[in-house]
Amino acid sequence: MSRTSFKEHNCSLARTVDLLGDPWMLLILRDSFYGSTTFSEFQKGLNVARNVLSDRLERLVTAGVLEKRPTRPGVERYTYHRTPRGDELFPLMMTLLQWGDRWLSGPEGVPVKIVDAESRAPVQEMVVISRDGRHLRPEDSRIEPGPGAGPHLLKVFAYFKNKRREAGS
Amino acid sequence: MSRTSFKEHNCSLARTVDLLGDPWMLLILRDSFYGSTTFSEFQKGLNVARNVLSDRLERLVTAGVLEKRPTRPGVERYTYHRTPRGDELFPLMMTLLQWGDRWLSGPEGVPVKIVDAESRAPVQEMVVISRDGRHLRPEDSRIEPGPGAGPHLLKVFAYFKNKRREAGS
Repeated sequence: MSRTSFKEHNCSLARTVDLLGDPWMLLILRDSFYGSTTFSEFQKGLNVARNVLSDRLERLVTAGVLEKRPTRPGVERYTYHRTPRGDELFPLMMTLLQWGDRWLSGPEGVPVKIVDAESRAPVQEMVVISRDGRHLRPEDSRIEPGPGAGPHLLKVFAYFKNKRREAGS
Repeated sequence: MSRTSFKEHNCSLARTVDLLGDPWMLLILRDSFYGSTTFSEFQKGLNVARNVLSDRLERLVTAGVLEKRPTRPGVERYTYHRTPRGDELFPLMMTLLQWGDRWLSGPEGVPVKIVDAESRAPVQEMVVISRDGRHLRPEDSRIEPGPGAGPHLLKVFAYFKNKRREAGS
């Protein structure tokens, strides 16, 4: 698998996937949201090999998603905390969780609920919303080139626009 | 990497990650939302080896996220379309895209905009919202066991609850 090819697409989604589209990265993030901060908490929570965990934690630190803080001066032990950039992955975590709740949970019901700390009521379903507050399904949205779209992406857009036109939609 | 270990966690997020936490799976889904339906459209869009693409498309069909339709009777060629389950990955796609837009795009600006088909205005930022409409940050939320939480998960919850109490938060 060539990771470079994703970047060639010049697409923010591909960039995120290139960085985080790995099961361990996503599960380490989940455990960070659940409250894990120490190496051994992550290790016990995920039942993951030490070298794999070290590697992924370093990658998350390099990506600016987690930061490490020494537990005591002069000791090579750290705790791992989300940065603001990491905190902004909260909506991503919720979409992964809610889709699994809806489509992959068994008759026993959902294992975990995310609730509002104040009211203890479950949070709302994650949906795509228009500027004027309408819930948008995929067919209610359009994809348009942004200012950073390169020539390759513009060609892709033209292709799909033409395809839609031929399909009469 | 043992995929089984994710499932042991009995967590909807882990189940989603186990199914979709692979760069190709996520990028094939992206291209499906962009309009790709044929094998060759996916292949050109992703610059991916045919065997890898075949494998991932079959996995998405088995998972009920895409369905395949024969192009003509009696011919072994198919197009791939999102099912309702696949359509509900739209919010996941948006969170991946928006996080990348915000943290991983260059000075040239975002490559792609998702807009409301009616007004052509960009969609809102994906955020976690309480039942009464407040924007929740991670620290405004709590994680609670649901009806499907098993004994292991209950122990994990007790551990983190105790940890928060000791930290005085």
